[in-house]
Amino acid sequence: MQDSVANCAWQCCKGLDDKIIEWRRDFHRYPELRWTEFRTAALIARHLNQLGYKVIMGKQAQDPASRRAMLGSEETQAAKARALALGADHSLVDAMTDGLTGVIGILSFGTIDGSKPVVALRFDMDAIAQHEPREDRHRPYKMGFASQNEGIMHACGHDGHVAIGLGVAEALAVMVKQNVETGNAEMCGTVKLIFQPAEEGAHGGGQSIVNVGHVDDVDYFIACHIGMGATSTGQISTGTKDFLATTKMDAVFKGISSHAGGKPELGKNALLAASSAVLNLHALSRHSEGATRVNVGVIQGGSARNIICDNVKLELETRGADSRLNDFLQGRAELVLAGAASMHDVVMELSIVGECPGATSDPELSKKIAEACRKLWPNNDIREIMSFGAGDDATFYMQRVHENGGKATYMLFGADLADSHHGRYFDFDERVLPIAARTLVTVTADLLRGA
Amino acid sequence: MQDSVANCAWQCCKGLDDKIIEWRRDFHRYPELRWTEFRTAALIARHLNQLGYKVIMGKQAQDPASRRAMLGSEETQAAKARALALGADHSLVDAMTDGLTGVIGILSFGTIDGSKPVVALRFDMDAIAQHEPREDRHRPYKMGFASQNEGIMHACGHDGHVAIGLGVAEALAVMVKQNVETGNAEMCGTVKLIFQPAEEGAHGGGQSIVNVGHVDDVDYFIACHIGMGATSTGQISTGTKDFLATTKMDAVFKGISSHAGGKPELGKNALLAASSAVLNLHALSRHSEGATRVNVGVIQGGSARNIICDNVKLELETRGADSRLNDFLQGRAELVLAGAASMHDVVMELSIVGECPGATSDPELSKKIAEACRKLWPNNDIREIMSFGAGDDATFYMQRVHENGGKATYMLFGADLADSHHGRYFDFDERVLPIAARTLVTVTADLLRGA
Amino acid sequence: MQDSVANCAWQCCKGLDDKIIEWRRDFHRYPELRWTEFRTAALIARHLNQLGYKVIMGKQAQDPASRRAMLGSEETQAAKARALALGADHSLVDAMTDGLTGVIGILSFGTIDGSKPVVALRFDMDAIAQHEPREDRHRPYKMGFASQNEGIMHACGHDGHVAIGLGVAEALAVMVKQNVETGNAEMCGTVKLIFQPAEEGAHGGGQSIVNVGHVDDVDYFIACHIGMGATSTGQISTGTKDFLATTKMDAVFKGISSHAGGKPELGKNALLAASSAVLNLHALSRHSEGATRVNVGVIQGGSARNIICDNVKLELETRGADSRLNDFLQGRAELVLAGAASMHDVVMELSIVGECPGATSDPELSKKIAEACRKLWPNNDIREIMSFGAGDDATFYMQRVHENGGKATYMLFGADLADSHHGRYFDFDERVLPIAARTLVTVTADLLRGA
Amino acid sequence: MQDSVANCAWQCCKGLDDKIIEWRRDFHRYPELRWTEFRTAALIARHLNQLGYKVIMGKQAQDPASRRAMLGSEETQAAKARALALGADHSLVDAMTDGLTGVIGILSFGTIDGSKPVVALRFDMDAIAQHEPREDRHRPYKMGFASQNEGIMHACGHDGHVAIGLGVAEALAVMVKQNVETGNAEMCGTVKLIFQPAEEGAHGGGQSIVNVGHVDDVDYFIACHIGMGATSTGQISTGTKDFLATTKMDAVFKGISSHAGGKPELGKNALLAASSAVLNLHALSRHSEGATRVNVGVIQGGSARNIICDNVKLELETRGADSRLNDFLQGRAELVLAGAASMHDVVMELSIVGECPGATSDPELSKKIAEACRKLWPNNDIREIMSFGAGDDATFYMQRVHENGGKATYMLFGADLADSHHGRYFDFDERVLPIAARTLVTVTADLLRGA
Repeated sequence: MQDSVANCAWQCCKGLDDKIIEWRRDFHRYPELRWTEFRTAALIARHLNQLGYKVIMGKQAQDPASRRAMLGSEETQAAKARALALGADHSLVDAMTDGLTGVIGILSFGTIDGSKPVVALRFDMDAIAQHEPREDRHRPYKMGFASQNEGIMHACGHDGHVAIGLGVAEALAVMVKQNVETGNAEMCGTVKLIFQPAEEGAHGGGQSIVNVGHVDDVDYFIACHIGMGATSTGQISTGTKDFLATTKMDAVFKGISSHAGGKPELGKNALLAASSAVLNLHALSRHSEGATRVNVGVIQGGSARNIICDNVKLELETRGADSRLNDFLQGRAELVLAGAASMHDVVMELSIVGECPGATSDPELSKKIAEACRKLWPNNDIREIMSFGAGDDATFYMQRVHENGGKATYMLFGADLADSHHGRYFDFDERVLPIAARTLVTVTADLLRGA
Repeated sequence: MQDSVANCAWQCCKGLDDKIIEWRRDFHRYPELRWTEFRTAALIARHLNQLGYKVIMGKQAQDPASRRAMLGSEETQAAKARALALGADHSLVDAMTDGLTGVIGILSFGTIDGSKPVVALRFDMDAIAQHEPREDRHRPYKMGFASQNEGIMHACGHDGHVAIGLGVAEALAVMVKQNVETGNAEMCGTVKLIFQPAEEGAHGGGQSIVNVGHVDDVDYFIACHIGMGATSTGQISTGTKDFLATTKMDAVFKGISSHAGGKPELGKNALLAASSAVLNLHALSRHSEGATRVNVGVIQGGSARNIICDNVKLELETRGADSRLNDFLQGRAELVLAGAASMHDVVMELSIVGECPGATSDPELSKKIAEACRKLWPNNDIREIMSFGAGDDATFYMQRVHENGGKATYMLFGADLADSHHGRYFDFDERVLPIAARTLVTVTADLLRGA
Repeated sequence: MQDSVANCAWQCCKGLDDKIIEWRRDFHRYPELRWTEFRTAALIARHLNQLGYKVIMGKQAQDPASRRAMLGSEETQAAKARALALGADHSLVDAMTDGLTGVIGILSFGTIDGSKPVVALRFDMDAIAQHEPREDRHRPYKMGFASQNEGIMHACGHDGHVAIGLGVAEALAVMVKQNVETGNAEMCGTVKLIFQPAEEGAHGGGQSIVNVGHVDDVDYFIACHIGMGATSTGQISTGTKDFLATTKMDAVFKGISSHAGGKPELGKNALLAASSAVLNLHALSRHSEGATRVNVGVIQGGSARNIICDNVKLELETRGADSRLNDFLQGRAELVLAGAASMHDVVMELSIVGECPGATSDPELSKKIAEACRKLWPNNDIREIMSFGAGDDATFYMQRVHENGGKATYMLFGADLADSHHGRYFDFDERVLPIAARTLVTVTADLLRGA
Repeated sequence: MQDSVANCAWQCCKGLDDKIIEWRRDFHRYPELRWTEFRTAALIARHLNQLGYKVIMGKQAQDPASRRAMLGSEETQAAKARALALGADHSLVDAMTDGLTGVIGILSFGTIDGSKPVVALRFDMDAIAQHEPREDRHRPYKMGFASQNEGIMHACGHDGHVAIGLGVAEALAVMVKQNVETGNAEMCGTVKLIFQPAEEGAHGGGQSIVNVGHVDDVDYFIACHIGMGATSTGQISTGTKDFLATTKMDAVFKGISSHAGGKPELGKNALLAASSAVLNLHALSRHSEGATRVNVGVIQGGSARNIICDNVKLELETRGADSRLNDFLQGRAELVLAGAASMHDVVMELSIVGECPGATSDPELSKKIAEACRKLWPNNDIREIMSFGAGDDATFYMQRVHENGGKATYMLFGADLADSHHGRYFDFDERVLPIAARTLVTVTADLLRGA
């Protein structure tokens, strides 16, 4: 039985390999920033519609209140116009009310909607604000698919994620058809393919979907990433640990300027407050029960060297091995920021601009998938757990699924990388794409088959 | 005798009042930044040539080695092109080699060149990088002479200084002619009119001229400023004290970045170094023998909140009641900057981007001029000394003249102001312009007459 | 006329020279700390009583609410017992309720009490907590009058001040008698001799007397000090400037300790708070209108290197050219201290342990006294003004007298010094004592004579 | 076979229970500080001699160069005199050259010296500088065995460790005799009982013995502690993890004092340097690969609030999950300390006053011992690993033994405690003593039997 399903999955993916790579290059060419993934989402939605998925968008898909760090309305309008110019369907773009660019495709195996188990796969779509090098040493440029959207670049691999997701969507749609045609219902259940905006910076992309309840009924949740700890093509980790819980904060200190030579006493010095905050934030006690981190990464302030500085902005983050440890550090950090301001009688305005809980893959699910992978790729390096050196708002889904008794994991698909993630010359070995797609289709089929 | 000279001066200025105001508005309309005062200088040079002054420009006028904070070559070229488009003489602009935009006009009273005494007057020409408001409440805009050079504004009154200088040039030229014509040589000696670039920010404008030796033979030196402490039209101070000696520094801290969550131990944190420097700079002991100041006014650094910050730039200054006190503080500040860097094993690069000595007007010269002023403006508020709340690189000239046994002063010509100097809405009561011009012409004549 | 008065003063002092030096040595042998000057005060009171002064003590002399930094009751009792054992009158010591050890002696010239003018002289009596060296190089030891009260030493010269005061008291008493006997009333008015405790550390000695109103009716007030800026015997300054207003503060930070290796997160770190306070206090803007100072001079805290520090005490002070400037800095300092504590969620307790206003001698009085001095000591270096490098709570009296329209000054009597004031080997050339006494008697007589 | 050995061990210990408790109380009564454990060591040496152990002392036992934080020679002499007065053998005390108070007893099972395996047990002997409460609530006082050495107290349980060691020594000596007598050589090998001074504060006690090479030939090493994480009598942990490697440092900043009001510019402020060091030390990046800690626990400096502070002492420590991580942090800390000093041109003197590597019990040895314990104490809570919340220089031995291929562990013998270790009222349930002694004898016998 199993073999036949795996075989079917394999067959269904076969013709897709080149297509997936082409998709990836197309998305790479037209990268879009958080909350403005209009073209990307429109292409996805059109594709899912064509394949017979039930497609959910806009406020049905996402909670507007979860959004953070949205671009200004001018930039958003420009992105929308660009997407339309590049062939996005007008009606689909219109459906993405207020930059809610997430797309969820639902596919039922079996005769009834909502049948169990529910398997959800999540793919993130956003690019980052970075100039893509126009140099021959950079393969995307040399091969002609470098970014056409100045100042925006897919430098983390989300273009690949979307391409994988489209491939998976197509293969599963074919399998449903075969399932129906052959009359047997070897596979039963529901698949949700979640195409998520705004993963970078923890600006609410994941939360906005989780908060509508889209994973409340999910039995198995799988997110994935190309590369990261898995840096050679073919390597797969079916689980991930050490997502640190994190809070991203902006603190603005507002004082009173005055001429530093003539009337220093009239000033209220925001820079003394901010400098004290920086030192004391970094000096906070770490926690004995697990990793805790604090970092002020960006500082900016002042107008002239002879003016008492009246404004400084700090961009900072705290992290903890779990949410409790992060909360500990965030609480202490807030005290430091407020106290530093009060030392110099300046105002401090704090904004939480991002946050993610911690999470760890369910070991049982990770093991089950690893077994499937070992059958599928007998010669590859398959691991059940790897450490994640960063954050991903997939943890919101994982946390919710685990709370409701489901099982969630985060898979890594190894790829040779040309540069580190977010690096100037980031690119990856595209052979990872079909590997990832085939793996996810097979694993999904397995889960639906109750294997 | 005196009356006749004074009378003559007065007569010579009479027709100039409106012209000076027109000049001011023209310069206001086309403000130019430090070391790119091409149009301003070209108009001045043409005028001085026409009036019969011996004109010195380029390397004859200025020492290139004294220049600091020059604009990039692209910006400089653009400014040159703009000047030419606005009617500057090509040959004159060409004479301003490498942005040496200073113009010195020399006029001899008497039969021999270089005859004594030598009286030098200095006028600064540069504007500042500031957007001029296009609002009706702002008189220059309402009256149609707001800046046409976007992002540049005459917000300190140097447009007025240049206009005064041109008026003085013209009146004195007429007086030379009369001196010659009448055959008497009541006035004898040499006048140097120094039109100086790059006064703002202590970026070397004054030094560049002093270093060539142009005031080495000067017996009487007079610089002046509209407004400042003298905030009502008609008020005149013939002397100024409390120029603080100052050093302007940029300190760049360069560390090593690393992921603050994943690999904090690999980073070398430039922000901790810079924050420590800020606190410890401000914490330096002040000096018991006079005013001393230190201020870090601008900070900028880092790339992202989750990256250990690897670069921070501080813009700072020290000041002292005299150069010795400023040296004390500057020396201590340099230790703090270097030590802060070494605490975190980061590199610190320090640039001195500006400096001025302290200075005080010669009380005797100040008194002599005050007496002349009281005759000229019997109903005005004439003071011999006022305090200066800022720096001016006129102190380089004053220091040199005093060292050589000459007498130097810095005069303030009161004016009602619409906003503080460098303020967004800065403008001044233009009636100050003819007052200043007439005063300077009269005073110069007096000095040449040996009064 | 004047000559006869001066002559009389001179004659009256003549026999006192050796007595004054003996007194000084006696007081040097038995030094007493602030608010426990029982023996010193009892000897003074007995002497004044014998001379016919009206003597005011205890709550009549001082406001108990002004006292600060009193010793513990055990120490106070021990000091009292010691004083009694050393011959202090029991009834007089009893009169010094609760350590109010000040003694005021009032003497009237003329027939009615309270006749004008009122001349007040102030002498301070307290020693400091310091071990007196028992080495032959130290003259007081070698000559046998080193401190017998272990750990206490007259290392600032107040023993000399008291001795001068007693000499002045005796000479004036003789003069009153002569005034009466000769029937002429050349001198008319009232003299108040104020023997004040607790001058050191600004712990309220001066305030306690001023607050009762004892100088409210004073026309001429004179305080004096041996040495200080006047470091050669014979030199006299009849006025003093640059007393900085000052506030002395203790700040105690109280956090929560915890094991730094095992449970750092349980601690609340008082040392981080205190260190931030230190840096930010020193970093406060100074004031453009005059000298301002802030210094944390002493820090002490913590229990072990492996324990998060839960307590730190800072001893600090602010100073200003006048009380307004000091208030500015004190206010800012209090914000820094409170804010630093709140950064680390620790408690901060602030105690004001001392304060003095600023003051400057009345120039007219200073000049008048200088003229008298020049007659008295034609070969000496007599100045009208010198700078004071420290604080003295005589400024409370000076401030009050000036507020009420009187004239106040602070005189310096030069003396060769063996070490700096408060230095381990402090001693002074005792020839200053008769010079000071004769000068003060003469000056007082002059003022009473209406010269 | 095993049973007979275990049985024999049990029998040999039987009569010792009360003796061990008496010993403990005797040592508790006469506690001795690091490097002055003269009486304790003399009693141990005498006992070991009597039992037939080969006894090694003085420079044969310890490397003098490893000693740190020795008491002054006066204090050391006084301690020696006290020990002699309390019955220590003169010759033995003399053998403890220069405070080298360690005692090593060697016992051979079998016919040849140095036969294998070599089993080493380590017991620490020193007390701490603390006043023992004389209150009835404190059992040692109530029962009459509180410290007779004022200011010194056994508040960590080392008195119990010595008593256990003496009991083990006696039981093993009896077993050797029986081994010989019965003619069978069931047990074969060598036992080293190491009685170590100066464990507290990582002042070199352990290092001094390891550096002579006394554990270079050791196959099994066991150190132990009463209480710590094991807080109920009867509980045993046969292994310990999480000893953090640590370095203890004192940093003294020396500047130049000056009057803060009069001549602040002459000072070089040690307190600004030290405060910056404190903040920046705590702000150092922690390491991603394991626990790292830094703490400044004690600060002390300055002489008076009106004097620029010219000396500050910091007492600090770094820790790391292993020596590499501690080295990382120590290296960074040294840079901070030096840089902070150079910021204010003050001198910084750094002393390493203690250090320990990290260590973890060998899991195999820990398991083997646990199995023996479970047989011995079938009803007790026996664990193979517990976490250690502090440092112990036993890690020097463990590190060396592991390097040489041996196996080392650190056992915890649970005891109900009256207060935390180093707490004022520290005392422990003495029933732990026979439990520990019997366990160690049995385990040693097992290891010698090759079980």
